[in-house]
Amino acid sequence: MAEFTVDPRIEAASVWIGELSLCQVRLQKDARFPWLVLLPRRAGLTELTELSEAEHAELRRDLHVAEQMARRAAEVMGQPVTKLNIANLGNIVAQLHIHVIARHPQDAAWPGPVWGHGTPEAFASAQKTEVVGALKSLIAPA
Amino acid sequence: MAEFTVDPRIEAASVWIGELSLCQVRLQKDARFPWLVLLPRRAGLTELTELSEAEHAELRRDLHVAEQMARRAAEVMGQPVTKLNIANLGNIVAQLHIHVIARHPQDAAWPGPVWGHGTPEAFASAQKTEVVGALKSLIAPA
Repeated sequence: MAEFTVDPRIEAASVWIGELSLCQVRLQKDARFPWLVLLPRRAGLTELTELSEAEHAELRRDLHVAEQMARRAAEVMGQPVTKLNIANLGNIVAQLHIHVIARHPQDAAWPGPVWGHGTPEAFASAQKTEVVGALKSLIAPA
Repeated sequence: MAEFTVDPRIEAASVWIGELSLCQVRLQKDARFPWLVLLPRRAGLTELTELSEAEHAELRRDLHVAEQMARRAAEVMGQPVTKLNIANLGNIVAQLHIHVIARHPQDAAWPGPVWGHGTPEAFASAQKTEVVGALKSLIAPA
C-alpha cells in the first residue's frame, strides 16, 4: 500500500501544524488570509467523493477543529470573520486537500475567492510564530 | 420553525433540477461550466459545519449523485472532466450552498476558480433543455 506523503508544492506553500483525526492540517504561508489546508492521510486520493463513509465522518470532525483554528488564526492576525470558505479545488495540485479560510469584507479578495488572487504575502517572523503557536495549542496532544 | 426557501439570487442564477436526500440540486445558468449548486433544505444555515452528523452523512450521499450529474452535464456539453471543484464560499449569498463543478484544462477559468471569473454565458435554449433533461433523468423519482 502506498504511503501518505505531502505534495512538495503544498509542503512549500504551507507550514505543518499537526494531525487531526483524518487529516494533516497546515497553515498556508499567506499573511493576507487566515488559511488552513487539510490533507486526508490517504495515498492516491484526488476527489472528495473518494472518501469512505467513515472517512467522511472523520472529515466532518476535522472541519469543526479547523473552523476553530481558522477563527483563532484570524483573531491573532487581527481580522474579523464573516464567513468560512471550505473548498476542494485541486486543479493545480491533484492530491486531495481541503481549504478552510476565514473571510471578511475587508480582506484582500472579498467577495471573490482567494485562489489565484494577487500574490501571497509572507508572514513577519514574529507573527508566524504567534499564529503557529496559537494553532498548535488547539490540537489535543496525541 | 422557519421554512426552507431559496435565496432569490441563487434562484435567478440557476435552474431547479430536483431534490436529493438532503439538498435541492440546481444547474447554474452558465454554459461555460458543468456547474451544479446543492442547497441543504434547512432554513437559516450558513456554514457547512452547522450540519449535524446525520445531515453531513446525507450530504456525502448527495455529493456522490451530484458528481455523477456534473460528469453527465459535462458529457452533454461536450466537455472532458479532469477534476471536480466542490466548495462552499457564500461570501455573496449567505444561504448555505455547495458548488459542484466539473473542470478541465481547456475550460474558461482553468486552473483558477470559476467564481468571479468573466461573465456567465447563457445556455442556448436547445442545449439547456438537453442538459436539464439529462440531469433530471439521474434523479430517482420520488
